[in-house]
Amino acid sequence: MKIDSFFPDNVKAALKNDPPGEWMPALPKKCIRLSSGYPAPKLVPSGEIKAAAARLLDEEQDLPLHYLGTPRMEKLKQQIQNRLAERNIKVQEDELLITAGACQAIDLIARVLLDENVAVAVEAPTYMEALEIFRNYTNQIISIPIDDQGLRTNELAQVLAERKSAGLTLPRLLYTIPTFQNPTGTTLSGERRNHLLELAAEYDFLILEDDAYGELSFGESPTTLKTLDTVGRVLHVGSLSKVVAPGMRVGWIVGESEFITAFSWFKKDLDHPFAQATMAAYLEKVDLDERLTELKTVYRSKSERLAQYIKKYFPESVSWYVPQGGYFVWVKVPGVDTAEMLEKALAAGVSYVPGRFFFANQQEGIEYLRLSFSYESEERMEAGVQILGELIASYLKKTT
Amino acid sequence: MKIDSFFPDNVKAALKNDPPGEWMPALPKKCIRLSSGYPAPKLVPSGEIKAAAARLLDEEQDLPLHYLGTPRMEKLKQQIQNRLAERNIKVQEDELLITAGACQAIDLIARVLLDENVAVAVEAPTYMEALEIFRNYTNQIISIPIDDQGLRTNELAQVLAERKSAGLTLPRLLYTIPTFQNPTGTTLSGERRNHLLELAAEYDFLILEDDAYGELSFGESPTTLKTLDTVGRVLHVGSLSKVVAPGMRVGWIVGESEFITAFSWFKKDLDHPFAQATMAAYLEKVDLDERLTELKTVYRSKSERLAQYIKKYFPESVSWYVPQGGYFVWVKVPGVDTAEMLEKALAAGVSYVPGRFFFANQQEGIEYLRLSFSYESEERMEAGVQILGELIASYLKKTT
Repeated sequence: MKIDSFFPDNVKAALKNDPPGEWMPALPKKCIRLSSGYPAPKLVPSGEIKAAAARLLDEEQDLPLHYLGTPRMEKLKQQIQNRLAERNIKVQEDELLITAGACQAIDLIARVLLDENVAVAVEAPTYMEALEIFRNYTNQIISIPIDDQGLRTNELAQVLAERKSAGLTLPRLLYTIPTFQNPTGTTLSGERRNHLLELAAEYDFLILEDDAYGELSFGESPTTLKTLDTVGRVLHVGSLSKVVAPGMRVGWIVGESEFITAFSWFKKDLDHPFAQATMAAYLEKVDLDERLTELKTVYRSKSERLAQYIKKYFPESVSWYVPQGGYFVWVKVPGVDTAEMLEKALAAGVSYVPGRFFFANQQEGIEYLRLSFSYESEERMEAGVQILGELIASYLKKTT
Repeated sequence: MKIDSFFPDNVKAALKNDPPGEWMPALPKKCIRLSSGYPAPKLVPSGEIKAAAARLLDEEQDLPLHYLGTPRMEKLKQQIQNRLAERNIKVQEDELLITAGACQAIDLIARVLLDENVAVAVEAPTYMEALEIFRNYTNQIISIPIDDQGLRTNELAQVLAERKSAGLTLPRLLYTIPTFQNPTGTTLSGERRNHLLELAAEYDFLILEDDAYGELSFGESPTTLKTLDTVGRVLHVGSLSKVVAPGMRVGWIVGESEFITAFSWFKKDLDHPFAQATMAAYLEKVDLDERLTELKTVYRSKSERLAQYIKKYFPESVSWYVPQGGYFVWVKVPGVDTAEMLEKALAAGVSYVPGRFFFANQQEGIEYLRLSFSYESEERMEAGVQILGELIASYLKKTT
């Protein structure tokens, strides 16, 4: 029996790509995880979630453990609609689909909209899981660079015009993380937001707005693309992973009802009553605005600390972007192949994500790395950055 | 903006099928649910799951709420491997993928193996959610009838031979629920199990064995297809939905590691740490064999009661299959269009599933209905069957 004879061509093509998730080696135990985009342990409300699960099962017994769950599932939708309203996104019930986190949301959108004949545009660099998802459906990935104002929409306009005049496939979808981008921490400027929407109309593509970090602003959160979108070109994806806890797997897609219908059609894992109803019960009892204020204060302070440590321990040639929200600092280390250096860093007990992992074309981003300030304590962050600084210095000494 | 211009042809084709889940109208409140394939409320261990979640979060705090979860996730895999071993299925770690229930498992298999150029063979009748899933990927659905010994493998052999000589597409996958089938409750005989595996080898197709009900035997559980499979043609799907609780969404696929790799590649919703680790914590403290003995005793008794009520309240022309396990009784009601009668039944406060919903060709199964004995109490089952019996009698009177 020849196993791969059972796979259609598109699956065979996808399986030839780099294995999913294997870009990052296993982390040693006790490793200082500057790679992980996890929330701070102290900010994960495990006590409240324990109480929420207990209250849920006391009040509703077996109901949340059946297929359809409880009216609390509808309540979760309302709670999310309320959150979205605070971001000036007004959503009818049939314009919202609850998903198992933002990853499932992106995968559903890719599955329904993409195939091997279709192109998708992405930011360079971008969220690596999204790249993995898109590669399962198409090899036509168009990378558009970003700078400190986010996606370079002028560059996008030029690429689109060139592709159009050359008769090349135009993208059906553009994937962007406009606010506190992963990995760079940059935010798309207001002017470029409008420009992007104009280009979407001109070239008839959809925008997948990944807003995973949008609420985690150290100052004001910018207006979402979905808020600016008057015609329904924006599919807005969000999640409670960064604001509550990723292990609960609660995310969503907002879009025109016809899109939502199509995504639901292909979402065949059913609802997740226990996790979703527990989340609803948790949200009933928490003042999420108050919680957000706390999160913002803590993450802002941690981001400032990380910048201080970088300044203190990294060689002077290093530069980095100062984010206004989110989880990450994007660091340029001239003269260092960060993917090559990773093994040594792990051996020394510190992890980071090499820049090239965030590019569709892995020849880019060689001198960059992503540090996360969300997860580790300030003490461990400092220790980790010091170790990395010494490693970089010895690396640079060797090559000069 | 023309929304459906963004959908590839295969998606457009899928969206033209019947809307998912809309075969069944909303049930009135207080309806006696003889339609629902839910476990009995009393047998859903909500207290134990509450305790498991509390213990998990006490012991591991934030860990089960992060992306990767805890070592308990690996423990869940081992617990499932142990369950499978009891069914004489020996599984290495890389031959097992945990999914969000059997539905996600079936969807992943369909997504990786099927496309519009490929055919899939199904039992007629079969699980309607599986039909919905397959329709998203191909319109080439080959229905093979079943009788009281399960799938008619001679008929399958004939169809395969005819299709081959006519140059028609042969199925790449055959979907079967060989044990306590949904909806008929029938079990594939040992002889036919071997015949099916021979046919799979001869015509080079894979078998998706849906074993959702396999452990819920009133006597002995038959040998699974996976146990008999020596070459890796069987993809075995199971779940804890019927044995513990569907709202936890824990299921799995067992297959050759190359298949499992491919399925993992396309499974982009990540693991579900809170639900899966809670399940692991629950399984740590429960004697599942003891629990199974209780489940079998209760469901056996409920199935016998349902048969008694049918005998007592349904007209004499009605016949039904006596299942040896599972959740369902399949009833033939000569002279009644059960889909047409459903509205009246719901108005009278009782639900069932019309037979035609289980057929790819909905012109079949018109005189059949599926009753579930799993969910309702004996008292409510009796009341429901009595109401249905009167409805059927008045229906038959009208048409004669």
